[in-house]
Order: sequence, then structure tokens, then C-alpha cells
Amino acid sequence: MRMAELSKASGIPVATIKLYLREPLLPPGERTGPNQSRYGEEHLRRLRLIRGLLEVGGLSVATARDVIDAVDSDLPLAHSFGVAQRAVSANIDPGDIGLEALARIDRLMEGWQVSGDSPGRLAAARVLETFESLGQRDEGSWLSRYAAAALLVAEADLDQVQARGSREAMAETVVIGTVLGDALLSGLRRAAQEHVSRLRHPVPSELDRPPTRE
Amino acid sequence: MRMAELSKASGIPVATIKLYLREPLLPPGERTGPNQSRYGEEHLRRLRLIRGLLEVGGLSVATARDVIDAVDSDLPLAHSFGVAQRAVSANIDPGDIGLEALARIDRLMEGWQVSGDSPGRLAAARVLETFESLGQRDEGSWLSRYAAAALLVAEADLDQVQARGSREAMAETVVIGTVLGDALLSGLRRAAQEHVSRLRHPVPSELDRPPTRE
Repeated sequence: MRMAELSKASGIPVATIKLYLREPLLPPGERTGPNQSRYGEEHLRRLRLIRGLLEVGGLSVATARDVIDAVDSDLPLAHSFGVAQRAVSANIDPGDIGLEALARIDRLMEGWQVSGDSPGRLAAARVLETFESLGQRDEGSWLSRYAAAALLVAEADLDQVQARGSREAMAETVVIGTVLGDALLSGLRRAAQEHVSRLRHPVPSELDRPPTRE
Repeated sequence: MRMAELSKASGIPVATIKLYLREPLLPPGERTGPNQSRYGEEHLRRLRLIRGLLEVGGLSVATARDVIDAVDSDLPLAHSFGVAQRAVSANIDPGDIGLEALARIDRLMEGWQVSGDSPGRLAAARVLETFESLGQRDEGSWLSRYAAAALLVAEADLDQVQARGSREAMAETVVIGTVLGDALLSGLRRAAQEHVSRLRHPVPSELDRPPTRE
């Protein structure tokens, strides 16, 4: 297809596509004349990935290019996924986190294959530190139940990724799923809290409405 | 204790405590002279709740006051929790969300006691809409496994809340736990994704180091 058709099919303006070609985030089309190129399905797929990286992931163009390079490389999938996942995770300096909190998170993740500079490991340790600095503490099994739930969700995430066909589509799902999955889990968790709270502390039905005066 | 001691015990500057007294977020102490009051343990506890609301929850003073009023009221616990939880959740206009996405989230939460304007329900439906608008779809059981994990986490959250003693301490844990729990889960989820990804797509050990030239 021509540039105008690629724009129509992707919903992305021609000027934006040209910008992606210059960066380059998008590989050039096949030259068919001095001022004309032909684009294929692979360009459409790549445009979808680019939009996911920039719009959902909120990445800079340079970081998006790193992710795309990892996807295009023939490195093992876990490696490409790692690059994509790190790109959409907060960058935390390990030196900012206490060793005690890191050790507790490591005990929590015992048996997990996680690298020392994993953004998730650092983020979890930082939360634990903040939690305790506010006078809260793990009452029994709060942390370990969170770890168990995280493992369930990660299994579902990887199944979701593997159901896609190409490396490109998989990386797209890694990025979109990582960002949107956080928000989905946060929303469902609030709804589930409301449910469990109502089960445990039933609200008399007359209090579910504004009180009336007699 | 006197104001200066309250400040020392709480780590909050006197000027800030005076501001909380004026708002009022903090109830007055017991007058012991024309320019002197005495404060007790309940003031320390309340200061902790205020800090949780303002610093962790990121609430405005007016919203923090609404939460404190709900905690101080004799409304059922589920009601106070609801006020605290809503205060730290994004405010979403139900009109902005498609009925189809809402219906799918409701099917997912079948049997849950969740009100129609639950911020969690609306947030989850909005994520689903975004996810699908990006060409992603639920491959089998992604959504239902997320809902199951959210329920596990919510049970852990409520156990954590109930282990606290007073209504005030419970509300504090609702707010802090809601905000920090999202971040904890997000971190653990990333670490678990790395683990599951490495299990499924082993990275040859020579690729775990930077390549060397011969």
C-alpha cells in the first residue's frame, strides 16, 4: 500500500508516519519510484507497536527505539521481554533502598529467577520501606499473599503474550499488558475490597440510602 | 503532652500541627491554661492518619477532612472504608465508559457486592476499553484470572485492616494499604513476570553476560 493508505489503515497521520520513518522507528518501505514507496502488513503491525510504546507506555522516542531494537534482534524472548518491561517500569537506584527491605523482598520471592537489578524487585522493596516507615507492618501473611497473587497474574500475562503470533505482537502485548495490567488489577482490587468489606461488615439497608428525617 | 512534645513524638513541625488544628483535621487538646493545651495518644494516632492521607494518599485537606469525618462517625465500617477508598481512587465519569465494557466487567465480577458507581468497577471497564481499542483481546482467561487474583489480594487487605485495633487505625490502613498495595502488586508482578518468562524461555547463560569479541 502507499503512504496515504498506510495512514488510513493505521489511523495515524502521514506527517506522524514520516516522523517515525526519520527517527527511525519504522523501517522504510520498498522503493517503487523516486518519490514513492510501498508498505506492507509488517508496517501496520510495527505502527501498532510504536503507538503502544509511545501512547500507552509513555516512552520517549529513544527508549521506544531500544525496545524495537530488542524485538528485532534474535536475542531470546525473555531478553526482549525484559527490555520491553524495563522500559515501562520506574527506574529505581538500588542504592536508595535499605538492605533489610531488599532481603525481606528476596525471602518473599524465594525460588523466583529474578535479577538483582529487576525494577520490580526494587519497587517492591521501596514500597515495603515506605509502608513500615508509616508505622504499618505485615500482619501475618499480607506480603506473601500479594506475592502469590502476583505469580498468578504473571502466569496469565505470559499466556496472554504467548497467544500472540509474532515476536513483534508479543512485545506489543508485553508493553501494553504491563502498563494496562497494573491499572486493571488496581481497579479490580478496589471493587473486590468493596465486596469483601460488605461481606464482612454488612451495611444495614437503610444506611445505603441518605437518612430521612421524621 | 504539650504541643512541643507532640511535635517531637510525631516528627511533625509545630507550625504544621497548628495548621491541622485550624483546618480542623486534628481535634483540639485539653485546655490547661490561656495559651496551653494538653494532647494525648489519640492526637498522635490522628496525626499518623493525617500524614497517611495527605502524603501517601495525596489528598487535599478538604478530602482528608471528609475521610476523617467518616472515621469519626458511627456509620458502619464498610461505609467508612468506602469513603476512605474512594478518596484515594481516580474519579471517573460513568458516562465516559461504554456500556459493553461495563457489562463485561460486571460479568467478570458476578456475585460480587459492588455498587454501580464503584471507582474500581469504572476503572476496570475503562482499562478494558483501552486494551481493546489497541487491538488486544482477552486470550482465554486473562481477565478472569486477574479477577481471581484481585479477590485474593482484597481478602489479604481486609485481614490486614482488621488486625488493627481502632476504627482510626483501620481507616489509616485502608488508605495507606490501598495506595501502597497498588505499587507493591505492580512491583511483585514485574518480578514474577521475569521469573515466569525465564522459566518458559530459558536464556542461555552466555547471553546473560555482554558478548565478548574473539
